[in-house]
Amino acid sequence: MRDVLPEEVALRDWAMAQILTVYRRHGFVRIETPAVESLRLLLRSESGENEKLIYRILKRGEKLATADGVEDLADLGLRFDLTVPLVRYYAHNHAKLPQPLKAIQIGPVWRAERPQQGRYRQFTQCDIDILGVASEVAEIELILATTEALAALGLKDLTVRINDRRLLAATVTHCGFDPERAGSVFIALDKLDKIGRDGVATELRETGHAAAAVDRLLDLLASSATPAALRGLLGGRVDEGVWRGLQRILDTVETQAAGRFRVGFDATLVRGMGYYTGPIFEMQHGGGTSSIAGGGRYDRMVGRFIGRDVPATGFSIGFERVISILLDRGSATEADTERVALVFDETEEALGPVLALARDLRERGKHVLLEARAKRLGKQLHDLESRGYRKIGVLGAGGAVEWREPRVGGGGGTSG
Amino acid sequence: MRDVLPEEVALRDWAMAQILTVYRRHGFVRIETPAVESLRLLLRSESGENEKLIYRILKRGEKLATADGVEDLADLGLRFDLTVPLVRYYAHNHAKLPQPLKAIQIGPVWRAERPQQGRYRQFTQCDIDILGVASEVAEIELILATTEALAALGLKDLTVRINDRRLLAATVTHCGFDPERAGSVFIALDKLDKIGRDGVATELRETGHAAAAVDRLLDLLASSATPAALRGLLGGRVDEGVWRGLQRILDTVETQAAGRFRVGFDATLVRGMGYYTGPIFEMQHGGGTSSIAGGGRYDRMVGRFIGRDVPATGFSIGFERVISILLDRGSATEADTERVALVFDETEEALGPVLALARDLRERGKHVLLEARAKRLGKQLHDLESRGYRKIGVLGAGGAVEWREPRVGGGGGTSG
Repeated sequence: MRDVLPEEVALRDWAMAQILTVYRRHGFVRIETPAVESLRLLLRSESGENEKLIYRILKRGEKLATADGVEDLADLGLRFDLTVPLVRYYAHNHAKLPQPLKAIQIGPVWRAERPQQGRYRQFTQCDIDILGVASEVAEIELILATTEALAALGLKDLTVRINDRRLLAATVTHCGFDPERAGSVFIALDKLDKIGRDGVATELRETGHAAAAVDRLLDLLASSATPAALRGLLGGRVDEGVWRGLQRILDTVETQAAGRFRVGFDATLVRGMGYYTGPIFEMQHGGGTSSIAGGGRYDRMVGRFIGRDVPATGFSIGFERVISILLDRGSATEADTERVALVFDETEEALGPVLALARDLRERGKHVLLEARAKRLGKQLHDLESRGYRKIGVLGAGGAVEWREPRVGGGGGTSG
Repeated sequence: MRDVLPEEVALRDWAMAQILTVYRRHGFVRIETPAVESLRLLLRSESGENEKLIYRILKRGEKLATADGVEDLADLGLRFDLTVPLVRYYAHNHAKLPQPLKAIQIGPVWRAERPQQGRYRQFTQCDIDILGVASEVAEIELILATTEALAALGLKDLTVRINDRRLLAATVTHCGFDPERAGSVFIALDKLDKIGRDGVATELRETGHAAAAVDRLLDLLASSATPAALRGLLGGRVDEGVWRGLQRILDTVETQAAGRFRVGFDATLVRGMGYYTGPIFEMQHGGGTSSIAGGGRYDRMVGRFIGRDVPATGFSIGFERVISILLDRGSATEADTERVALVFDETEEALGPVLALARDLRERGKHVLLEARAKRLGKQLHDLESRGYRKIGVLGAGGAVEWREPRVGGGGGTSG
């Protein structure tokens, strides 16, 4: 976990505000769930590897004293994503929520991962979810809103890849894998971007899958550039509705995109979570292979809480990844308010006038910093300039203001 | 801990934005620290009762296996306030931070308190702190910025009470208490608002303080309505600079307040934390006795990290208390953007036109909700109205829009 310095916080706050504005325009409302959830909930969420990375919170007092072994020391955990808490929230509150619910969530999640470049144990996720819409209009809305939100941040070179879990499952069965072990095939296939075809083939064989099935799967996927191609290979194994829905998403999104972003089918797209039940999607930026957003349909997760299935789809922006792209390109988020610094003599006589002047400027929307005059005024003015103060007033003891307009381009020119 | 429903999240987001805008105008910059800190740090912070309420995070894997008894099961904890993390942050990052640092923090903190009305185990704090300013200009800036932030939320009936820990300490010694046990005197005195003079006297006697000292203290405080009165009673026990600083804060804030809020001395004000070293302050709203903001100077806390003292002052808004006041008065935070709902037939023919229309409206800043036409259109339109949609378009299969302008006052009038 890490500290965030003021310049990056300003960028993060700006990016969050942009994203929220777009999502609100798309009719989404923000909700909030606590950071801490019951450990039992977190552990039965079919969230794959993430469940191993939960930070567990030690029981307290009495409850700790009666704990029965290591497994029993904790009954709460920090959330590792925003989807599991959303479903719990919906189950608890659905009578008080709009139906269908179009929810925005932005907040920190925690995973006890090994520290590595660009990965943190606390990081921010930014999700939208639609609960209560069974048709692929939900997927279409999520994709259009998310691409627009990222475009508002200046990320316009976007590619959306779409697949459907039901196609993946049919493909795996068709190729001769044991359907009961489809999960382990998905896990290996999910690494195709990273370890390549040979790596995936090796992993599949090592986990005990038949070599013939492995080859057949990888050949089939390689030759399935379009849903039509895959359909030709799979024949009637998949319901007509699945093909129609997928095509509707692809066609509608492509029409609406109108060239603003790319969208396409990808038969090899898997997504990590076990809970997906239908269309899944992922988004890349620029030439990069790592995804900056991902999501899919999870129609059976709510049902486990409230006893009746509620159709659900979500799309999650990898907020930290987005921020690191924005930092790399040095995105300007300069507030358009003028920043003013007022330097005053630390005497009682100067304080009244400087406070009155600051108040007046602030009422006109300026950001006004007060600083007591340092011994080395020249250095102080230079520091203020380099921190972005383009207008600096130096107040004398009587309240008279001498305005310094720094040289364009800043740096070093002002002497005290 | 609790879920927050969409209407309250909207209010919270609005309130946060208002507060941030005011603080930024006052030259503060936002920083962020992680939710999780080392337990050792949290436990040595002189934060009084709060240290008992820390959520501890269970060690993982190897580290857990070698844990040596209950005390050794955890090495991390959830932060219980934003001051301790700020000081750690400053110690780690001060070379990269503006000097002096004027920091804003808004974020959740956690305390394992017994649940009670209006208190939650996860709650939001909103702090500003100034690190690196020794003069009382820091206190003055904090008080002016915080009163202005609360006024921006419509909370204008504000009273600021000010005291100084050094006066409290001198008073306690003067009355014959053991200076080494001043802490326990402060803890009892802090409850004056809640349990009254008799309650405090009883508690002080029960914790072993001499009855004569107890009576003397309570009499002395009761007759110290002004710093001058207290000064008359304490004589030369307190440095001239303490009196002068206190008077400067009181006079300057009163002048700047110009009747917008009340400010006054309160010899009985204590504040809970052990780390305060100078002026302390608290703010009430309306006739209430419970505080909605509090803070003070803690000049020796940074020194314990970086080996040299850095003067520091902070003011923390009790964000949950503020939100509950705003909820009670039904504060309007209505977005001034017009909210539009578009109801469409769930057919392929209607989807293209409705998406195009939505896009057009969103580009003009509207919040646009898409909903598939329900079987009972009348009920659907009624529900949308009651959720605040003042403009509702119903699209036919061909893309033609029929606009429904609901009756003013809403409710029940639209039939499908």
